[in-house]
Amino acid sequence: MEVPLLIIIALISGILAIILALVFAKNVMKEDPGNEKMQEVSGYIESGAKTFIAVQYKILILFVTGLSIVILFAYNPGEFSWAHMIAYLIGAAGSMWAGWLGMLVGVKANTRAAQACTVGIKKGFNVSFFGGCVMGLAVVGVALIGVSSIYWIAGTTNIVENPATVILGFSFGASSVALFAKCGGGIFTKTADVGADLVGKAEYDLPEDDPRNPASIADNVGDNVGDIAGMGSDLFDSYVASIVAAMLLTAMLSLTANETFAILPILLCSFGLFASIIGIYVIKIWKTDVPSKLLNGGTYIATVLFIGLAALCIGLFTLFLTDSVEINLAWRLWVCATVGILSGVVIGWTSDYFTREDKKPTRNIAKAAQEGHAVTILSGFSYGLLSVLPPAIGLVAAMAGAYWIAEDAFPGAGVLGVAIAAVGMLSIVATIVSNDAYGPICDNARGIAEQGDLGDEVIRTADKLDSAGNTAKAITKGFAIGAANLTVLALLFSLIADANERLFALGEPLIAGINLLNVGVLIGAFLGVVAPAIFSALLVLAVQRNAGKMVIEIRRQFEENPKILTGEEPADFNKCIDIATKGSIRELIFPSIISIFLPIVIGILFGIAALGAFLAGAILSGFVFAIFMSNSGGAWDNAKKWIEDGNLGGKGTETHKAAITGDTVGDPFKDTSGPSINTLLVVMSLTASLFIGLFLLGIFNFGAGLITFV
Amino acid sequence: MEVPLLIIIALISGILAIILALVFAKNVMKEDPGNEKMQEVSGYIESGAKTFIAVQYKILILFVTGLSIVILFAYNPGEFSWAHMIAYLIGAAGSMWAGWLGMLVGVKANTRAAQACTVGIKKGFNVSFFGGCVMGLAVVGVALIGVSSIYWIAGTTNIVENPATVILGFSFGASSVALFAKCGGGIFTKTADVGADLVGKAEYDLPEDDPRNPASIADNVGDNVGDIAGMGSDLFDSYVASIVAAMLLTAMLSLTANETFAILPILLCSFGLFASIIGIYVIKIWKTDVPSKLLNGGTYIATVLFIGLAALCIGLFTLFLTDSVEINLAWRLWVCATVGILSGVVIGWTSDYFTREDKKPTRNIAKAAQEGHAVTILSGFSYGLLSVLPPAIGLVAAMAGAYWIAEDAFPGAGVLGVAIAAVGMLSIVATIVSNDAYGPICDNARGIAEQGDLGDEVIRTADKLDSAGNTAKAITKGFAIGAANLTVLALLFSLIADANERLFALGEPLIAGINLLNVGVLIGAFLGVVAPAIFSALLVLAVQRNAGKMVIEIRRQFEENPKILTGEEPADFNKCIDIATKGSIRELIFPSIISIFLPIVIGILFGIAALGAFLAGAILSGFVFAIFMSNSGGAWDNAKKWIEDGNLGGKGTETHKAAITGDTVGDPFKDTSGPSINTLLVVMSLTASLFIGLFLLGIFNFGAGLITFV
Repeated sequence: MEVPLLIIIALISGILAIILALVFAKNVMKEDPGNEKMQEVSGYIESGAKTFIAVQYKILILFVTGLSIVILFAYNPGEFSWAHMIAYLIGAAGSMWAGWLGMLVGVKANTRAAQACTVGIKKGFNVSFFGGCVMGLAVVGVALIGVSSIYWIAGTTNIVENPATVILGFSFGASSVALFAKCGGGIFTKTADVGADLVGKAEYDLPEDDPRNPASIADNVGDNVGDIAGMGSDLFDSYVASIVAAMLLTAMLSLTANETFAILPILLCSFGLFASIIGIYVIKIWKTDVPSKLLNGGTYIATVLFIGLAALCIGLFTLFLTDSVEINLAWRLWVCATVGILSGVVIGWTSDYFTREDKKPTRNIAKAAQEGHAVTILSGFSYGLLSVLPPAIGLVAAMAGAYWIAEDAFPGAGVLGVAIAAVGMLSIVATIVSNDAYGPICDNARGIAEQGDLGDEVIRTADKLDSAGNTAKAITKGFAIGAANLTVLALLFSLIADANERLFALGEPLIAGINLLNVGVLIGAFLGVVAPAIFSALLVLAVQRNAGKMVIEIRRQFEENPKILTGEEPADFNKCIDIATKGSIRELIFPSIISIFLPIVIGILFGIAALGAFLAGAILSGFVFAIFMSNSGGAWDNAKKWIEDGNLGGKGTETHKAAITGDTVGDPFKDTSGPSINTLLVVMSLTASLFIGLFLLGIFNFGAGLITFV
Repeated sequence: MEVPLLIIIALISGILAIILALVFAKNVMKEDPGNEKMQEVSGYIESGAKTFIAVQYKILILFVTGLSIVILFAYNPGEFSWAHMIAYLIGAAGSMWAGWLGMLVGVKANTRAAQACTVGIKKGFNVSFFGGCVMGLAVVGVALIGVSSIYWIAGTTNIVENPATVILGFSFGASSVALFAKCGGGIFTKTADVGADLVGKAEYDLPEDDPRNPASIADNVGDNVGDIAGMGSDLFDSYVASIVAAMLLTAMLSLTANETFAILPILLCSFGLFASIIGIYVIKIWKTDVPSKLLNGGTYIATVLFIGLAALCIGLFTLFLTDSVEINLAWRLWVCATVGILSGVVIGWTSDYFTREDKKPTRNIAKAAQEGHAVTILSGFSYGLLSVLPPAIGLVAAMAGAYWIAEDAFPGAGVLGVAIAAVGMLSIVATIVSNDAYGPICDNARGIAEQGDLGDEVIRTADKLDSAGNTAKAITKGFAIGAANLTVLALLFSLIADANERLFALGEPLIAGINLLNVGVLIGAFLGVVAPAIFSALLVLAVQRNAGKMVIEIRRQFEENPKILTGEEPADFNKCIDIATKGSIRELIFPSIISIFLPIVIGILFGIAALGAFLAGAILSGFVFAIFMSNSGGAWDNAKKWIEDGNLGGKGTETHKAAITGDTVGDPFKDTSGPSINTLLVVMSLTASLFIGLFLLGIFNFGAGLITFV
């Protein structure tokens, strides 16, 4: 059997990624951690991050254990789905390990990056970037090892009919972690940030990141929690979900080489990893010291390399094919993957345009700040909504293009084309996560440089690194949102296909489509469109509520101990970290319930077609809210920065105050709700896929469904 | 033939409404217009309103003439659709006349209401309310006369196969006017309001409605333009569209008494008018002087009366039926109409809860204002989004209930049940519009009382009247949004039914459904979900841009003529009215193009199923945005008012300033974008229905469509 050879490539590339991650981690640790003061601050951040992780993982273990038992009984009601349950536990554990490693290295890298800035900007960049690469490579490594080994073992032991379904469990494990890491992390980071700003900046006129602010360490911890662990686990789950969706859709086709095709998504991801690794090395040897060039350049290099290496991958792959139609299909799928990754870049560009300080939208928002707080909000709100149109067209074009290309080669393969486009978009996820994890390291490094008295020159260097991270973030966020959307669309197609397979086996009539003229389906779509709006609102309210508690604590510390403000005594940082940690976990409960129970309830009540409509509605409106919130937030942030650079009067003016209002509103938009919607969509889609047995059961229990329509 | 008898009832009730409107108008004119100063101010408002109407109607006539020619050629490509074109022109002219009459009486009633407040609160209420009733009754009168006479003439002359389609033209005429009146009026009113607040309140510390503010008259004009003409034309078009959708869906059923059933929606509306008229008289004789009791009491009385009168209506109707199944269906439809109107009340209640100053959401927003501008925004934003859930569930329940009840009686009648629920919800539209038009009359009266030096007691009386208007508005807005959504859903069903009829006649395969698993349909749905977001953003940006111009003009007047601020010389009000008028017309062009051309382009490119998905997507996301924006805006407004009543420190504090920011952000949300979405949805749905011939042609020109999918 030739299949194991291809799987072995994937497995080895996954192991390679983990080895590289560990090597990078070790290299980072070898760097000079700077002076005592710097190490002290970094130590606070590290212990805060560890506290958060410890509390979060404790709850996560309870949550995951509980859900794993549900999976055991519910995946195929009537029998025990041990394989799915174990895969689920492995997925959760793997994602937790990757998040833990990435965070740990991140909080070690910050003070080392600050110290490296004393040598020069390139050195500072390298420490931050390779610190970030640990998370990027760990994510891809765990994912590839997990997916390929589970598929291999499940395939050879024949425990289940379709081994790809076991990977659904693995994917859902990663998703469960992402729900906590991304949403919880998002609430944590903005609780600290908003709380610190509201008292520190507004009431006591302290500068950003001032160490006297009791919430300053929590703010730094939050950056790591949200942008390293959170973003990493979010992309982890999209990545695995895109692979599993493509594998499941392959299984639905009647190709002669079905088994070989099922491995193609994993193989493409391996080659994507190679592209990312080469890109990382190019960054290492590239003789430029403009950090944004290095970051975005790395993304573009990885993109181009992926397109080339993917061709190589298909060339290798076709050696295992004999049928000329299938060889043609394989090459068509290469085009789909290319369409996917290119549309990811285009979506990233439009986010970049709408949030860059030298472009019209952000400039107009800054100008609006001259007319006060309200006009700043109205302006950012409107541009955020307008920014939805270009990526929507980009995504629609990618979807239609990929469908068309694949369907034309082999009838029924159109949806596989869409899934492969998602795989293509996520193939260079190692680069994307690395760029993201770079951000908080530089951000923390800047603060540490200031507190370690490394001088203005070094702080300016760290500032440049930090600002490049923000620019890169616009592009990576666009990627993440686009990819999550294509992935969940592919999962939707595979959900219906799986349902039909089960219905066929039971001799029941198949689902002909998700017909919006059916009132039950329309109800599903309606609730789906509403869900992301409610989810966003809950997260924003959570941040607002928690930040309120943080405000009270900061004020209390300043009032009870005046020596904190004079700098004679350190503030009680742990108290603030504690508030952010407990608050984020508590506020997570209700949104988590929504994302897991809502699909199940709708499925049981209205059946699978309505559930499909629910997911479709959520995907579409989720896209609107995710892009709108991320871009509004980014544009407000950069408008404020542009004013702080001395434009329109600069710092301290009324214009600046209005811009700060915009930025504060944008904080939970861009770092909590916006990016959490991706996770919501993936969790809901995987819930539907994994608990499908319940809905089939539900339908048959209630005859033709509790409520039936045309 | 027994049909004319029923039509004659409708026609007579329409004429009765017009006569009553004219009587009320005359009665209002007989009232004492107050002292010279009051008449002067009222004169400014009147002349401003007339200027706006004149400019707007000039553009409207060009627009309507152009579109009427398109309809002539496009409704049935290959032949001239004279009937549809003429009906379109009549619809537009009728809506323009009703809007003109309502506005004219409104601007005459304001000073008279102020003077009446010197007599007592009940007298002040009566003048305002009966002034508002002119618009309410004129809308219903024109609609009923138009619909019944067109249906009668088209039916007896047999110019077209299905006379109900001619009413589509009439409905689209009303919609075209609504697009200008509601969106243009919304931009006008908020341009003036925001501009006046930004300079007057924030920079010169002038109180609200201060006559020294050059934009104060424009602000008063704007209230009339937006809430009388705008809201009236908006409900006019929903009202007629709900009738025509139900008529078209009746034509699709194979009942023995099809022709009789087609008249049922018109008949129900006549009885709804009777309910409204009785409700209005109860208000007249009701011995209470609590204005909110009178307004909401009137709505509840009309609701209960409608349910009773509708039973009478069905009883009468069944006299013309012989088939027992059809008699059963008629009674089932009575239940549907009841479900519709009750769900309208429920949706209104939830809006009321989320925006009332004595309820938790608004209180929490007010408390959030203590933490500054940004937290105020975050809080209002979140509650606005959360407020979408209860009405969504209400609407879904109404839709499912109405479908179920009708479908169970006669297979295929389920969608007619949904349409009749929309008719039921809109049946008491005379009451709804009257309550709405009452608002600006009191609001203006309050300002005039202040400027006419009528004393504190009178101002307080006028204030009470005004605040009752605001409370009533929450309920009427909920009604308007719910009804528009049910109506466009019914139009969607009738669109597909009509398409299939045309396809059947051509011997082409029918549309089996709007299947979201078809990628073309998915693209349609995607663009549909995005459309309301873009439309809202464009309107908010329009307000922001125009308000900026207004700010410059107000500052210029204050700087060039210091005597304005001392009150020695009047400001140049006309200049501000001019800016608001021209700006609102100019900014309207792009959103209008979107709402009319987008459905046509999508229909031509992707075919009718994708167009249906586009409309469905727009309906669902439009509902979310309309409710969210209206309720966020309402809650911010009331949170500010609660603080101004002396809570949390009252006026002049930092908390108050933050609350003002919320209110200013909420202004274009609740009075421009939010309510304009209804109009957008109706216009897009009617465009699709009316230009359906183009899409059939398009599909056949490109074989099976330009792009085909599964």
